[in-house]
Amino acid sequence: MINVNELTKIPMECTLPEFVGTTVLDTIGLVIPGAEASLLSQMQLKKPYKSLGILSSRTGAAGQINAVDEAVKSTNTEVLSIQLPRDTKGWGGHGNFIILGGENVSDVRRAIEIALKFTEKYAGELYISEAGHLEFTYSSSADQALSFAFDAPVGKPFGFFCGSPAAIGLVMADLAVKSSPVQIIRYMTPDVGTSHSNEVIAAVTGEASAVKNAVLTAREIGLRLLVSLGSYPKTPSIPYL
Amino acid sequence: MINVNELTKIPMECTLPEFVGTTVLDTIGLVIPGAEASLLSQMQLKKPYKSLGILSSRTGAAGQINAVDEAVKSTNTEVLSIQLPRDTKGWGGHGNFIILGGENVSDVRRAIEIALKFTEKYAGELYISEAGHLEFTYSSSADQALSFAFDAPVGKPFGFFCGSPAAIGLVMADLAVKSSPVQIIRYMTPDVGTSHSNEVIAAVTGEASAVKNAVLTAREIGLRLLVSLGSYPKTPSIPYL
Amino acid sequence: MINVNELTKIPMECTLPEFVGTTVLDTIGLVIPGAEASLLSQMQLKKPYKSLGILSSRTGAAGQINAVDEAVKSTNTEVLSIQLPRDTKGWGGHGNFIILGGENVSDVRRAIEIALKFTEKYAGELYISEAGHLEFTYSSSADQALSFAFDAPVGKPFGFFCGSPAAIGLVMADLAVKSSPVQIIRYMTPDVGTSHSNEVIAAVTGEASAVKNAVLTAREIGLRLLVSLGSYPKTPSIPYL
Repeated sequence: MINVNELTKIPMECTLPEFVGTTVLDTIGLVIPGAEASLLSQMQLKKPYKSLGILSSRTGAAGQINAVDEAVKSTNTEVLSIQLPRDTKGWGGHGNFIILGGENVSDVRRAIEIALKFTEKYAGELYISEAGHLEFTYSSSADQALSFAFDAPVGKPFGFFCGSPAAIGLVMADLAVKSSPVQIIRYMTPDVGTSHSNEVIAAVTGEASAVKNAVLTAREIGLRLLVSLGSYPKTPSIPYL
Repeated sequence: MINVNELTKIPMECTLPEFVGTTVLDTIGLVIPGAEASLLSQMQLKKPYKSLGILSSRTGAAGQINAVDEAVKSTNTEVLSIQLPRDTKGWGGHGNFIILGGENVSDVRRAIEIALKFTEKYAGELYISEAGHLEFTYSSSADQALSFAFDAPVGKPFGFFCGSPAAIGLVMADLAVKSSPVQIIRYMTPDVGTSHSNEVIAAVTGEASAVKNAVLTAREIGLRLLVSLGSYPKTPSIPYL
Repeated sequence: MINVNELTKIPMECTLPEFVGTTVLDTIGLVIPGAEASLLSQMQLKKPYKSLGILSSRTGAAGQINAVDEAVKSTNTEVLSIQLPRDTKGWGGHGNFIILGGENVSDVRRAIEIALKFTEKYAGELYISEAGHLEFTYSSSADQALSFAFDAPVGKPFGFFCGSPAAIGLVMADLAVKSSPVQIIRYMTPDVGTSHSNEVIAAVTGEASAVKNAVLTAREIGLRLLVSLGSYPKTPSIPYL
C-alpha cells in the first residue's frame, strides 16, 4: 500500500496488470481485461467489449490516432472511442483519449503496444516552439481510427496538417490544397470540430503522391510562419516525412 | 487610486470590503453585499439573492465543491451556481467558479470563510506531477454543493476520483468500482460532462466504508500509474484520507 | 526547401507573400490573396471574399478585436469571423482567430497592418500575474468587430472588463456598473459565452465618460484583487487608459 507521505517511494516501473507502457508526449497505454459492468454501461461504447485497450496523451492527437490506426490494422481489435481534450500541457492544442475493444485481453494489449511504438514514430512530425505548434501526419491507407476521427475514406491515402496560432493553420491549408489535387475531408477551427483549441486543421484525401505533397507543402509553409514568431520549434521525436 | 505604471505598489493585503481571503490553488473568496440589479439579472441565478458569496480557483474543483458543501451545511446560505472552467494553469483539468447566496452579507461571508478553510484541507488530495494529476474527495454526508455539481444524493456518503491523462482515470474507476459495492452516479470524460479537460472522473455513492474504500483504491492505482510516466506528484496541502 | 533536421536555419524574417507581420502576444498577421475554392467553401464565411486577412494570437482577445475594429473603420474591408480559442498559453483565458475580407489583397493587407499596430497598443491593458489576469478595452465609437464579437452598438462608446480567476471578474463587474450609469450588453462566464475560460467578462455601453469611468473602476478593483493572490501582474505593452 502506498504511503501518501512518501510519494517518491512509488516505483516508476509499474507492475499493475493493467499497465502496458508509456512513451513520448506523456502517453500512457493501459488495458482493462474485463471492465466492471456498471462502468461499462456508463461508457456507452458502440459495442460492449469487456476487454478494452486505452491510449491517452497530454499532447498530440493526429499522430496517436494514426498510430492506433496501424494497431487496429494488424490486430483483432476495434476502435470504440476517440476524444480530444483541450490540453497540450498549456500549449494551444489537444491531447487524446482513445479506447479500443477486443474479444480478449492479449489482442488489445498487443494493439496498445503497437500504438505506443507508432506514437513515438509519428511524434516526429509534431513541432512545438515557444509561440505555437504544428502537427502533420500521413497514411498511405487509412483504417478505422482515421476514419472514426476525421472521416477518412478507408483504404485511401490520408493527410493531416494543423497549425497554431490558428492563422498559421489556415494559410498552410490554403497553400497545401493549392499545391496538389487533393480533396478536403475535414476543416476544423477553434469553434468548429475542435475542443476550442487554437488551431486550424485540415484533413485531405486523394492520390498518394498528391496527399503526401500537400502535407509536405503545409509543413514547409507552417515552419516558415511559425519561426517568424521569433523562436525555433523542436520535435519530441525524429521527423519521418 | 492605483498608478498602473507602479503596479508593485499595490498592497497585497486587500482592504476592499468585498475581499474575504485567499488560499492554495490561486483560490480567492469574495462577497458582493448587494449585487447591482442589471448585473444580477444577467447572471440568471436560480434565486435572486442580493448577497452573494463567490469562490474561485485556477486549479481543482472537487475539493473546493466539497469545501463549499461544508460551508452551506453550517450557514444559512444556498448554492446558486457551480461552473468549471478548463484551466488548472495549463495542466489538464478544471478550476472552479462557485456562487452562493444568502439573505445577509454576514452569512455569505461566513460561508466563504469556511469554504476557504476547507479548500486548503481538501487540496491535500490533489496530486500534480509533470505528467498529469489526480484528485480525490470524500464526504460522509453530501449536501447542496456535491448534489448540484455531481448529483450526489443529499445526506449520503460521496466519493470522487479523477485522473489525467484520462486513461489513468478510467483504469482507476474500473478498479475502484470492482473493489467495493458502490454505485456510479457520474462518469465524465473529455467530451462528456467536463469542459474538455484531459480527465476521466467518476463520482460514487453507497455505504460509507465502501465509498471510502473505493476512493482509497482509486488513489492507490492512480498514484502507481501517474508515477509510471516518470515524475513524482506533489500535493499543495497535506493528504487527509 | 526546409531541411527539418536543421530547423534553426529557417530565417526569422519571413518572405512568404502571405506574411504581413507579428507583434506581442504571439500575434501573427497574414493574408490570403485568393483563397482556394474548396477551402473557401469549407470556411462557410458569411460573404465569400477571395482576399482574406487573418489575425491570430495565443493570448488576448478584446484588445485584438478592438484593434481589428480600428482596422476595418479605416479600410475597405469587412469582418467575416471572430473565434476565441481556449488558450492564453496555459493562462486562464482565450486567444483569438479573426478573419477579414476585402475585394483586393492590398485592402486586407493594409487592414492587417493596422490591426497589428493597434494590437500592440491595446495589449497595454492586459495584466498577467502568476495567479491570473485582467483585460480591459475601450472604444469611443464601436464598429464592426466589437459589434460582431460583443453586440456593441455601432457608433457608440464601448467598454470591456475581464478578470481571472472568474470571481475577480464578477466583483469588478459589480463595482464598475455600480460606479457609472452604463448598460451591460454582454455578461460571459466559464459556461456562458466563453470557450470555458476562467473569466467573468462584462461589456458595456453608455455615454463616453460613464463607459470610461466604468472601465477605470473595474481596473482599479481588478488590480487590487489580483494582487491579493500574492504576485504582481505585468503588461506586455504600455497602459493607455
